[in-house]
Formats: sequence, C-alpha cells, structure tokens
Amino acid sequence: MEQSTKPRLAILGGTGDLGTGLARRWVQAGYHVVIGSRQAEKAAAAVADLRAVMAERNIDVEAVDTVEAAENLQAAEAADIVVLTVPFAHQASTLEQVKPALLGKILIDVTVPLVPPKVARVQLPSEGSAGQIAQNLLGEEVKVVSAFQNVAAHHLKEGHSFDCDVLVSGNSKEARQQVITLVEAAGLRGFHAGMISNAAAAEALTSVLITINKQYGAHAGIRITGLDH
Amino acid sequence: MEQSTKPRLAILGGTGDLGTGLARRWVQAGYHVVIGSRQAEKAAAAVADLRAVMAERNIDVEAVDTVEAAENLQAAEAADIVVLTVPFAHQASTLEQVKPALLGKILIDVTVPLVPPKVARVQLPSEGSAGQIAQNLLGEEVKVVSAFQNVAAHHLKEGHSFDCDVLVSGNSKEARQQVITLVEAAGLRGFHAGMISNAAAAEALTSVLITINKQYGAHAGIRITGLDH
Repeated sequence: MEQSTKPRLAILGGTGDLGTGLARRWVQAGYHVVIGSRQAEKAAAAVADLRAVMAERNIDVEAVDTVEAAENLQAAEAADIVVLTVPFAHQASTLEQVKPALLGKILIDVTVPLVPPKVARVQLPSEGSAGQIAQNLLGEEVKVVSAFQNVAAHHLKEGHSFDCDVLVSGNSKEARQQVITLVEAAGLRGFHAGMISNAAAAEALTSVLITINKQYGAHAGIRITGLDH
Repeated sequence: MEQSTKPRLAILGGTGDLGTGLARRWVQAGYHVVIGSRQAEKAAAAVADLRAVMAERNIDVEAVDTVEAAENLQAAEAADIVVLTVPFAHQASTLEQVKPALLGKILIDVTVPLVPPKVARVQLPSEGSAGQIAQNLLGEEVKVVSAFQNVAAHHLKEGHSFDCDVLVSGNSKEARQQVITLVEAAGLRGFHAGMISNAAAAEALTSVLITINKQYGAHAGIRITGLDH
C-alpha cells in the first residue's frame, strides 16, 4: 500500500453535523481523518457511523480504514491539519486544551459566533470574529485559517454535489491555499478572502443565511458571481 | 399624463459611482429621482449626464423629465424614500443634516464602513455596522433599511443584466419589502436578511469582494444558492 502524501486531518468536535459532513467528504476523497471529541466513546461512535455510510456508498475498504477516533487532544497531536467544528461557546476552551498540539500547524476554524437563542441575528464578538479570537489565542506560531461557515451541513453529509462557495480567510496565503485544496476535495470552490480579520464576513453571513433558510425552508449558501467579466 | 404611484426617490451623494448607477436603473424603470449633493451644481451636472445617458439608451422623454437636482436636504425633503450613498466618512454628518426631512420615511443606507487605505480589510465599527449607526442616529421614527453594499457600481451603471443578489436588512419588514421592490426595479433579486444589525454581513462582505476583485480583475458579487432544495 502506497503511503499517502495528503495531510492527515483531525476534526475536533467531529461528532457534530458539520464535522460529520466534512469527515465524510474528506474520507471519500482519500484523506486520513481522525475524529476528535471530548469523549473518546462519542468519537468512536462517529467513526462507526462514518464507516457504515462509506460502506453504503461503496467506498473502498482502504478509505474506510483511514478514519480513526480519539479525544480532541490526541486527535490534534495525530494530525497535520486540525479542523475546529465545536460550538462557539466551546471554541476557546477547546483551543486552550489542544494548543500544545497545534504549534507549526494549520488550524481551520469553522466556528460561527452565534449567540443562542437569537442565532439569526449577527452578534459578532468584540474581537471582530471567532477567527480572530482563535488567532489571538493561539499566537502567530499557529496558522489559523477560517473557512466553511456558510456551507450547509445537510448538503455536506449527503454525497451529492451542491452549489456553495467557501470564503477562506487567514494571515498566511500558503496556509489558505492548502485549505482551498481541502475545500476542493470536498467538492466546493474556495476563495482567498483576505486576512483572518475578514472571517467576520463569512461568520456574519451565516446568521443571514439562517434568516433566509427560515423563509424558504432551504439550506441556502452563497456563490461568488461576476468573475468572467 | 397619469400621476405615478411609485414613491419619489432621493439619492444623497448621488453624484458618486453607486448613486449614479442606482439613479440610472430607477429612472429607466420609471421612477422620479432627485439627485442630491452637497453642492447643487454637482447634482445638476449629474442630472445632465443622466439625461444624456438615458437619451443614448433611447429612454423616452417622460422618463428623462423625471429626474432633478438638489442639495441633499432639499432632495430628502422632496422624496418619499431617501437613499444614502456617501462615503462612510460622511455618513453621520450627512444624516445629521437631513434628519429633519426623514421623519416617517424609509432611509436606504448603502454605506459600507470601509477604512481607507485598507479597504480590503473588514473593519466594522464598534456599533456593529454602518446601518446600525444610521438607525441609532435617526431613531425609530425613521425606518432604516440597509441594502446594495455588494453590488458593483460598474454593472449598475451599464444597462445590462447581471448576476448579483442584494441582502436587505432593517427592523421593519414592510420597509424591507418596499426596498426589495426597488431592488427588483433595478433588475436584481433582493432578500429579507433580518434586523438592521444584520447589515454587518453585507458590509463586511464588501471588503471580501474587493479582495476577490483584486485577484480576478473582476467586479464580483454574490448569489444566494440552495433555495430549490
């Protein structure tokens, strides 16, 4: 068996809807994915589910073998690129816990700073964005890249293709490019959206999409237009 | 000649690119538009230009007669719906000046809180958004509706159709609906995007679109996707 040159991914909070959707996409694309959770048994259940879904989709055994379960810290240690998909309320505490395992790595922050119960209302934090909070907390030795805030978990979990672009913000252009490669592996288009402070745009947009979803009974997303002119 | 039942529109800062583009679209759709400026002679020059463009496009004389020039305060007084398209640095001072003329009316705030020279960086104000600033300043007797932040002036000024949706935020649903009618009159799709605080999303997104425009040499916009599912 040839060794993969793809980065090994950890998805912290990987038992949630968005983490589950991303895991399915990336395993299907041939990535080795470690599902992280606060409780190892929850992560193990998510992995079992993931394997069952891959089997249903007739994904080959090798791909199914490339997924494993761990507690969040062990998951982060085992990975080259770490993805954070926990609720905003747990963002800081999770990052504090895994910080030692992130040095020199890319942290993909998928956090949306929703403040329940009014999740359809934009309520950005005083730091400007959850992405900025992560970068401040982790320091410049971790390349924080914000992405996937506007992607409906519903669509990610299904195997079908769907129409949604991903805004990718971060202070390192090279790190953004690596994340755009992962966006494309998930079947989507990614765009360089600027420095980490620009994560505010995608994060705020999520509440607008929730507002639109309520009206249309939909799982709305966005597409960047006007690029051919 | 039948009296129009359409609301009379004033565009404050109507000599700029975005104001010019909106004026062209709405005059072409049969609206009576008052171009406002700090200086009456600049407004008059904009009106002359608008008439020349309408003549080039073979728009009938009646439409061309329904455009006039005024200083900002007089423009606001003459209109049913007032549109603010001045730079962020002049937003508050312009609103203070015209505030007495806005009571009971809709104020469409098109302001994007860009902070030059770093206009590609999201730098939202501490109030959350320029739309919120306008609502705070004008009080609840003025229905502030935020819209058009993500529309490229370049495309608006041209007569052609183009692919860009407009996020419409404001505390009054009925006022948002009136603005959506104006969005559609300009040839675009408008979406109820929530309370005025949600203006932050479209305002932040403008800096991301500027970032993308630099990479693609484009006039990018957005489209809401996933509504048919």
